[in-house]
Amino acid sequence: MSMSRTRDTRDRRERLVVVGGDAAGMSAASQARRLRGPDELEIVAFERGRFTSFSACGIPYWVGGEVTERDQLVARTPEEHRERGIDLRLRTEVTEIDVPGARVRARDLDSGAESWTPYDQLVIATGARPIRPPLPGVDAPGVHGVQTLDDGQALLDTLSATEGHRAVVVGAGYIGVEMAEALINRGYEVTVVNRGAEPMSTLDPDMGRLVHEAMEGMGITMVNNAEVTKLLTGGGGTSLLERSRELGGSRVRAVATDDAEYPADVVVLGIGVRPETALARAAGLPLGEHGGLLTDRAMRVRGHENIWAGGDCVEVLDLLSGRERHIALGTHANKHGQIIGTNVGGGYATFPGVVGTAVSKVCDLEIARTGLREKDARRAGLQYVTVTIESTSRAGYYPNAAPMTVKMLAERRTGRLLGTQIVGREGAGKRVDIAAVALTAGMTVEQMTTLDLGYAPPFSPVWDPVLVAARKAVAEVRRHAE
Amino acid sequence: MSMSRTRDTRDRRERLVVVGGDAAGMSAASQARRLRGPDELEIVAFERGRFTSFSACGIPYWVGGEVTERDQLVARTPEEHRERGIDLRLRTEVTEIDVPGARVRARDLDSGAESWTPYDQLVIATGARPIRPPLPGVDAPGVHGVQTLDDGQALLDTLSATEGHRAVVVGAGYIGVEMAEALINRGYEVTVVNRGAEPMSTLDPDMGRLVHEAMEGMGITMVNNAEVTKLLTGGGGTSLLERSRELGGSRVRAVATDDAEYPADVVVLGIGVRPETALARAAGLPLGEHGGLLTDRAMRVRGHENIWAGGDCVEVLDLLSGRERHIALGTHANKHGQIIGTNVGGGYATFPGVVGTAVSKVCDLEIARTGLREKDARRAGLQYVTVTIESTSRAGYYPNAAPMTVKMLAERRTGRLLGTQIVGREGAGKRVDIAAVALTAGMTVEQMTTLDLGYAPPFSPVWDPVLVAARKAVAEVRRHAE
Repeated sequence: MSMSRTRDTRDRRERLVVVGGDAAGMSAASQARRLRGPDELEIVAFERGRFTSFSACGIPYWVGGEVTERDQLVARTPEEHRERGIDLRLRTEVTEIDVPGARVRARDLDSGAESWTPYDQLVIATGARPIRPPLPGVDAPGVHGVQTLDDGQALLDTLSATEGHRAVVVGAGYIGVEMAEALINRGYEVTVVNRGAEPMSTLDPDMGRLVHEAMEGMGITMVNNAEVTKLLTGGGGTSLLERSRELGGSRVRAVATDDAEYPADVVVLGIGVRPETALARAAGLPLGEHGGLLTDRAMRVRGHENIWAGGDCVEVLDLLSGRERHIALGTHANKHGQIIGTNVGGGYATFPGVVGTAVSKVCDLEIARTGLREKDARRAGLQYVTVTIESTSRAGYYPNAAPMTVKMLAERRTGRLLGTQIVGREGAGKRVDIAAVALTAGMTVEQMTTLDLGYAPPFSPVWDPVLVAARKAVAEVRRHAE
Repeated sequence: MSMSRTRDTRDRRERLVVVGGDAAGMSAASQARRLRGPDELEIVAFERGRFTSFSACGIPYWVGGEVTERDQLVARTPEEHRERGIDLRLRTEVTEIDVPGARVRARDLDSGAESWTPYDQLVIATGARPIRPPLPGVDAPGVHGVQTLDDGQALLDTLSATEGHRAVVVGAGYIGVEMAEALINRGYEVTVVNRGAEPMSTLDPDMGRLVHEAMEGMGITMVNNAEVTKLLTGGGGTSLLERSRELGGSRVRAVATDDAEYPADVVVLGIGVRPETALARAAGLPLGEHGGLLTDRAMRVRGHENIWAGGDCVEVLDLLSGRERHIALGTHANKHGQIIGTNVGGGYATFPGVVGTAVSKVCDLEIARTGLREKDARRAGLQYVTVTIESTSRAGYYPNAAPMTVKMLAERRTGRLLGTQIVGREGAGKRVDIAAVALTAGMTVEQMTTLDLGYAPPFSPVWDPVLVAARKAVAEVRRHAE
């Protein structure tokens, strides 16, 4: 069945095998290569797709038209990796990890040939797969996920071949709201169908409500508390592409919930992702409660000296709750890869965990969060106070001072910052970094009130909005202490 | 000579006297009032000008035309303070502080009447005065400072009455570069004459060089290493206003240095400010080497239980160097006032010190700094490494990703962050807050590399520019450790 690939006995080089050629995997490979040249370390990387090191986070902007060329999303091409001495095998899927034998089996997706490749060090960077609910009609033409560049291209092909103008986005998390913006930019009438009470369930509902209202103000139809039951197909097909393929009758025409039907010429699934860990599970590697690989601080798979994992296929420690979470985000994947590559390359680096920072936007609305939501704090057994304030991005008298709302959670008694959420316009989103660093440092809201932040009228009110929230939180902490 | 004002013996209220009605003084008064009502605390505030609580930092934008009305710069009017039960005396200058007698002498600037006012608690918030070098011609018509609202109005009057189109700004610090922008916006040809080797001496010269080049790119003539020797007057007067006043012959017509003369229809002095502490000095209160009042952490003047000071008239502890500095900045003044008011009001608050964060802009160029420059580090006896990187404000493929340069200083051996300087376009400036919080928390550059900052393509590259600098600094620290 498989041709066994054994190592040349004269080759004393160590071999690093990387499974998955995207952010985490190729960052690890690149960093290991930087530290150890081809004479010392052989690097073989398997990628089942046709691309490497691409920015999945950039797909909504490609679909929306801000990014014009697919290749702009590719940070480093296969050729560039190969020039750096990485033996990169595209369209080659790893089908098995043999941990006791220290080898992986891979299949060439074009020829179907399989072979085993032994490793001294293994990096698992298999990423995440989009959640695709097993609904009737979910595989119909006109229904799209947006995880890979091929997904993005397929959606763009549908958009350019579709005469309709109605789009339904299922899900109102980051991907959902970003895709709503993309489709608005493409001239679609957009409906967002969302299971939760408000969009952006990574925020508390009171802050999600602000997003809801702002999105409606942009002309987006928001349907909350709605569970999609099926995707209706046939009859309404308007795609030139499909007509030419004689598939017209089977394409999506509406999204159905218990209560209603929402006509759709195109449907985008933006429900979220799960760790892609089937291989790891089959190999008996340790997975957490969210299905992601569990690693130590050096990003080594727990209990396995020579197996590393990073990016969207691992769980990360939440420094606030002390629990593992699954967060699929390119910035973490790149850090993990850098750390793994440093360790494999003979250096030393660790990933301490996350505070859960995220930022996004819908048209000109900026949405950011870090730390714990109210329900996270309760789940972690923490008692907290919460405050919400309104301020502006610049001095009130300066042109284009944009309103923003900041919500802050602090621990009762100690006053330790637990979380911050921001919804506003230009200049709101990246302010969350102030709170992210303060959370990492374990600061109290009282310590935050004297932070020496950049001030000038075009950049901030004299009290930065984050400090205004901190001041109010101090008062609230004191009130509860009395 | 003076009518002694004694307290009604039936009045058991404590009296707080505030000297100076701007940010620090009126913040202190307002916060004290919030905590203690008029039945408990009498508050008397003396202000020699006609305004209270105005934003001096906003004056360049008023002159430049972004802010259209003077009153937009007034955060709280005299009437609003009075409504809150503060006995505010405008156009009343405190001329003496009698510390042993616990009273201040004040003169009504309109009537000339003087009187003594006893205090239980005293807040000194006398601010700063602009440096006005004793040069020939410095008092000529057409030469302007920009410290007070009256200064701003006088400059605006000159601009609207002047037919000329040539402006010279003396000084290339924050005020200088902001006034250069304002005058460009007013349609002037602007020359900036600067004593230092590069503009923005709050940056290292290599970063100041970037500001220099960018300002030249905006059409501003930059003259560095130039000491102004005199202001030439007469002959060139073009002001309608002055002609009507028959003063034409004495108005400014050029700025002279050792080497050259720069024709000027208007001259703006933006050389900086010094603490206004003549009163405090005469009263024997402790001043530091920069001429500012010295306080404890609660903002109490050292050695004086019932005298407080804050804002531009005090020195602040630099947390990095361990030394006192003078930094005139509205955001500190507001914090000081808040802290003093809390303490006077029976609460407890402290100001730990500063890390020296500042942000500014010239047209679309953003300039930011925090912590120590190279020469500060040397002066503090610290050995350091330094790195400089280039990155962008957004993902490289996202529209309007603007270039920025980040310079970072870290302590040798420990890798502790010592300072960060940023020069770039939109989105560059406020990124300095990340470093400001990290400095406050005493983080190492290695700790910074794993900071969980907000990432999405419209907001940041996958590695935030500050983290790119931190990564390079880590490598540099390691290189020096070998």
